[in-house]
Amino acid sequence: MPAISEKGKMIPASPIRKLAPYAEEAKRKGRKVYHLNIGQPDIPTPKVALDAVRNMDLTIVEYSHSAGNESYRRKLAEYYRNIDINVDHNELMITTGGSEAITFAMMICFNPDDEIIISEPLYANYNGFAVSTGIKIKPVTSTIENGFALPPMDEFEKRITPKTKGILICNPSNPTGYLYSHDELEKLRDIVKKHDLYLFSDEVYREFCYDGKEHISAMHLNGIEQNVVMIDSISKRYSSCGVRIGAMVTKNKEIMDSAMKFAQARLCPPGLGQIVGEAALDTPDEYFKEVYNEYIDRRNYMVEALNKMEGVKCPMPGGAFYTITHLPVDDADKFAQWLLSDFEYQNSTVMLAPASGFYATPGLGKQEVRIAYVLKKDDLKKAMKALEEALKAYPGRTAL
Amino acid sequence: MPAISEKGKMIPASPIRKLAPYAEEAKRKGRKVYHLNIGQPDIPTPKVALDAVRNMDLTIVEYSHSAGNESYRRKLAEYYRNIDINVDHNELMITTGGSEAITFAMMICFNPDDEIIISEPLYANYNGFAVSTGIKIKPVTSTIENGFALPPMDEFEKRITPKTKGILICNPSNPTGYLYSHDELEKLRDIVKKHDLYLFSDEVYREFCYDGKEHISAMHLNGIEQNVVMIDSISKRYSSCGVRIGAMVTKNKEIMDSAMKFAQARLCPPGLGQIVGEAALDTPDEYFKEVYNEYIDRRNYMVEALNKMEGVKCPMPGGAFYTITHLPVDDADKFAQWLLSDFEYQNSTVMLAPASGFYATPGLGKQEVRIAYVLKKDDLKKAMKALEEALKAYPGRTAL
Repeated sequence: MPAISEKGKMIPASPIRKLAPYAEEAKRKGRKVYHLNIGQPDIPTPKVALDAVRNMDLTIVEYSHSAGNESYRRKLAEYYRNIDINVDHNELMITTGGSEAITFAMMICFNPDDEIIISEPLYANYNGFAVSTGIKIKPVTSTIENGFALPPMDEFEKRITPKTKGILICNPSNPTGYLYSHDELEKLRDIVKKHDLYLFSDEVYREFCYDGKEHISAMHLNGIEQNVVMIDSISKRYSSCGVRIGAMVTKNKEIMDSAMKFAQARLCPPGLGQIVGEAALDTPDEYFKEVYNEYIDRRNYMVEALNKMEGVKCPMPGGAFYTITHLPVDDADKFAQWLLSDFEYQNSTVMLAPASGFYATPGLGKQEVRIAYVLKKDDLKKAMKALEEALKAYPGRTAL
Repeated sequence: MPAISEKGKMIPASPIRKLAPYAEEAKRKGRKVYHLNIGQPDIPTPKVALDAVRNMDLTIVEYSHSAGNESYRRKLAEYYRNIDINVDHNELMITTGGSEAITFAMMICFNPDDEIIISEPLYANYNGFAVSTGIKIKPVTSTIENGFALPPMDEFEKRITPKTKGILICNPSNPTGYLYSHDELEKLRDIVKKHDLYLFSDEVYREFCYDGKEHISAMHLNGIEQNVVMIDSISKRYSSCGVRIGAMVTKNKEIMDSAMKFAQARLCPPGLGQIVGEAALDTPDEYFKEVYNEYIDRRNYMVEALNKMEGVKCPMPGGAFYTITHLPVDDADKFAQWLLSDFEYQNSTVMLAPASGFYATPGLGKQEVRIAYVLKKDDLKKAMKALEEALKAYPGRTAL
């Protein structure tokens, strides 16, 4: 039997893959498992979006345009123009989730062994896309002490080598919830311009910005219009994670021309998902207000509850629906497993994502977990209570 | 502005990409263009499959399992077992079209610069997937004189180097319509076993086999169970090209384990498409009989019509719905463009796919085109008449 490839061996498992069998086992025992480990919101997909599929009068689901249906692209461009991102329908491409958009961007802009600088903790799947495309992630570490703000620019500059082709940010950030300020983005702009790098900006949580803070897109930055590739997705904005529709947006025609060829090779993005995505653009404002209020409420409750627990430290996230939280435990991987295999409180427990999977630097994040506040407040309350009790009972609890 | 990557430059355009603006122009002039250039059937998607989406009672389209919904995988495994492919639901993975299945298989089994042997003419998008994954296609040429049968085994052996990791077949073949015989597959088995290669088998046209000939799957071959990866798709079987649902099937656990990690990085296959795919498994036999009769009728009519034209040669395809046809023209690329830009017959014309895009060897296929018989017979008749007239009128017609 022939050997599998280096990539086939190197591709990292999802941070929660090891935990999945323990979660199944806990459920088999009849325990309620509160899933704080994944970014799967419990918010309904907008009715207008699902109704569009329910009422479709298609008789054949044919290949669409490889860049996505033109009607959808035109309407999506309009959505962007409404938030001051000045693009037309030829400067964006509908992709199979944000995942495909990042993969295309990496393949088109980076040669194998080229380097991309990413602030860690980072979205774990970036590691997977980097392996797929053969590029190297050079992490710059942001810290919980600074609320996961952008590390100083000299930390970025130190990592720039002749192999460095770009910087990737996620704004607001999965997994930290950090929202970049205007000042931080200007600094990024300067370094991108100075070294003529690409700037990939994953903005799938754009609509989730709190406390009156404004989202600033990388597409707004002056003077690096040809360097920016924006990654987008309908997954979070319209609670449509399983639909697998995203977008790659850039003013750079050379990138877009090349992307079209990769897009043609895989034929087209999902057809029914495109119907959902296009119709979702008509989601009434009311929906977003409700979703916003719901997340603010969950966030405020959860961050307060966490910080009240002894030895727990959770910065206030400015966006998205995650936090990276410090826990008083010896090893968050062990703790997360113990929660599922050994612990129960009133026949329930909590599933967390150990933060080690969100760092590219080995050894970091050992006392941190990512917590997603994607549950109804009642469930969130029960989950917080269970977590509090668990921290008291956990044998590997560290001294304060 | 930073340079794009080598892959970004190398990725080939679709064989018909250059023709698309000419087709648009012809349509703008009010001409009817008969599309014989793409494998987009005009057969309806089964009603049972589309109704499943129309009647879905989902309120949130959540992430599915990264390998696809378990209920779908179990039912799909049952479908395979019914055609004597002995797999369970853990030996297959639902993918975003057959395209993703091939990409995964290439990434997992091949290192960059490794070589894969493919009989040409070949499905043009294999070139794109090879560029994406950095592997090299080593073509073995099949010829129209032999009806595009498998070239002799010593032609394969000549191409085997220390970098050769596998062979890819498409059976029945897009673009030739050739259906491999039992004897040919046994020969392939022997060479795969002798050199311990992977055998990728793209079987998305499995249901389209004519004249009582039986489809033999690579999964049926004894002694190379760990070497075979089968690629599948619902696109053609259920005329669901735009749904983007396929499958990767293998008994090799190491490949499947690695595939799960790549699958997790991209989260999951399209959710609504999975509903279509699962429901499509209940498509009544009547549907397939009608489709079969329809294609047989179209094929017989078209092959006869083509061979009646002076200087045209079209082998009888045993499967799929394509032929590679020899035309008496100086350059099929020029002819295909001329058809759209200069020709009309009763205000209609024909769009063909020049075969040069289906060869990996430069210079081959200059007098060949791929013709898909995916149009209703009435349209097909008109298209054949237009083609016949075009061949008479074309200034670059070659002597017979």
